[in-house]
Amino acid sequence: MQQARTPNARSHMSPAWIETPCPAPSASHEAAARARQAVLTKPAGSLGTLEALAITLAALQATERPRAAHAPIILFAGDHGVTAQGVSAYPAAVTVEMLKNFASGGAAVSVLARTLGVPLTVVDAGTLAADPVPGTVVDKPRRGTRDFTVEPAMTDAELDFALAVGQRAVERAGPADLVLFGEMGIGNTTSAAAIAAALLAKRPAEIAGAGTGLDAAGVVHKIRVIEAALARHALDGSSPSDPRRVLATVGGLEIAALTGAIIASAQARRPVLVDGFIVTVAALAATRLNPSCVPWLIYSHRSAEQGHGVVLDALAARPVLDLNLRLGEGSGAATALAVLRLACELHNGMATFEEAAVSGRSAP
Amino acid sequence: MQQARTPNARSHMSPAWIETPCPAPSASHEAAARARQAVLTKPAGSLGTLEALAITLAALQATERPRAAHAPIILFAGDHGVTAQGVSAYPAAVTVEMLKNFASGGAAVSVLARTLGVPLTVVDAGTLAADPVPGTVVDKPRRGTRDFTVEPAMTDAELDFALAVGQRAVERAGPADLVLFGEMGIGNTTSAAAIAAALLAKRPAEIAGAGTGLDAAGVVHKIRVIEAALARHALDGSSPSDPRRVLATVGGLEIAALTGAIIASAQARRPVLVDGFIVTVAALAATRLNPSCVPWLIYSHRSAEQGHGVVLDALAARPVLDLNLRLGEGSGAATALAVLRLACELHNGMATFEEAAVSGRSAP
Repeated sequence: MQQARTPNARSHMSPAWIETPCPAPSASHEAAARARQAVLTKPAGSLGTLEALAITLAALQATERPRAAHAPIILFAGDHGVTAQGVSAYPAAVTVEMLKNFASGGAAVSVLARTLGVPLTVVDAGTLAADPVPGTVVDKPRRGTRDFTVEPAMTDAELDFALAVGQRAVERAGPADLVLFGEMGIGNTTSAAAIAAALLAKRPAEIAGAGTGLDAAGVVHKIRVIEAALARHALDGSSPSDPRRVLATVGGLEIAALTGAIIASAQARRPVLVDGFIVTVAALAATRLNPSCVPWLIYSHRSAEQGHGVVLDALAARPVLDLNLRLGEGSGAATALAVLRLACELHNGMATFEEAAVSGRSAP
Repeated sequence: MQQARTPNARSHMSPAWIETPCPAPSASHEAAARARQAVLTKPAGSLGTLEALAITLAALQATERPRAAHAPIILFAGDHGVTAQGVSAYPAAVTVEMLKNFASGGAAVSVLARTLGVPLTVVDAGTLAADPVPGTVVDKPRRGTRDFTVEPAMTDAELDFALAVGQRAVERAGPADLVLFGEMGIGNTTSAAAIAAALLAKRPAEIAGAGTGLDAAGVVHKIRVIEAALARHALDGSSPSDPRRVLATVGGLEIAALTGAIIASAQARRPVLVDGFIVTVAALAATRLNPSCVPWLIYSHRSAEQGHGVVLDALAARPVLDLNLRLGEGSGAATALAVLRLACELHNGMATFEEAAVSGRSAP
């Protein structure tokens, strides 16, 4: 085991693009947006989170009139070798079956994208599918990860490929007011919990949850599987781990693609509306690989999955919604998009006290 | 004071319509909606509150396909004699100034109604305005309430009139998938806190908050004003008070109109999406006057106003959103409408496991 603890020099070398700094938000536009909120016809601060969201978007978009109109959803799917250990309530075949459901419009995120009028792109970043699923983009280094209870989930080269899958998807999507990422992958709450435990030096029992619906015994088994894997790969130390090694060892191809997509979006000045547990873990990895992406992350919701709160706390995140969701797919981010749109409309569309000839506060 | 404690027989007599029973939700449609949620392509329960909202609406609308498309917003405005006691950060003139802002489209709720594509009706249920504000409906028994620190806010006849204002507004709005109510009235958090304290037998200090933005000293003064008024009118007892007497004594004309509107909506099978502190207090009064309206209330958000949590708890309410709002106007309900619409679209638009040929759970 000591050998595994020795950092592999190669594993520390990110492709150069990963560490390219993300631009800073515009302080002047943030100040202007804050000043505008103070003169709109309402008590200052009375729109709470809706004000804060508009101000944040104004700073990120470097505009006085933030928008959340064009907000493409990109969903990354991948399969997980660790499903061989019986860690999910659903068979691995569901990942590919759901790819078809996404493409044909029957899945939750498909319905939300249609309703919100935003494009949904589905990227097969590493499912077991042998043939392309019509209506999806195939961009994967391999079919599924290896079982990380036995060996590392992916090689360094496969990790680099998967990170670049995210970058390519963001490039293809083109300019946007903000971007939403979703995921699908039977077994991926196990991978995400393992990543979070390793990066945060937490016990798996604090993070692993029911996923798609394990019973109590199933959760205990899942925790044992993660504990054993982290011990095997010497990722159960008390000090934070190298994010690349963690991703390669216990990660998922879709989670690595999400990590790359988050960094690439921030680098391209596109705010990211972060979904639930899996995407938040990818965001955690992204902030470890490139801390300058932090300001570009807006957290959409607090999910029902056990470990989400732990990861959100580590990121000092204050999500917009708390709707007891635990589906993934980007469904929580899409739901929050509806709220962000209202926040922008209020910011841009309300009258000022002067315009409306409404009196301000009484003299004290 | 003993005399005031003696129930006034007349004050107990509601107009007959107030106590007309509201219909029960449809248990069969609730069961059908629940069954449908269980076979949509997602782990059962994984859409959390979005599932619950769709099921609730299905039961209330007695349909298998709930809708939140046509959802008119009716805003009731009124002025408060108690503003003479310096209980608000804003001058009373703002109520009428805001009526104009609602009508001309510059207020928060105006922007939200426009964005959501729902009609906004503004009812002057008792402002100080001497002349009708163009674009508003005038239906009021008097201009402003009396200062309840000195005398009851309204007579029994004025209360009956104000309750009927709400009923008439609901009738004018006609059929709807659900209805949203808003309010405007400088001083109305003081009235609402007094109503809630009296109905819940709580100390005003547990309920009264900053309203539109009082400082700490202002809140203390507001609490003292409410305490003195409740003592003067013998409404500070430890047992719950007669809701009619409470409304007439420390209520507001817009709050009484909201109470009547909530009951009338429930009687007409129209679910009510309850806004923030003021509307929730009106809902509390409505449930005391006619407990059969309880199932028809959906709570939109938990506001930042101090007493809202207390009143929500008393109603066993679990609001959809928690966005730190404290504006009123129906702005929280309108924001939640966007979420309800997504809940309906998901319920109606997702594919079932069978339709999508997706595998169900693994055998245990």
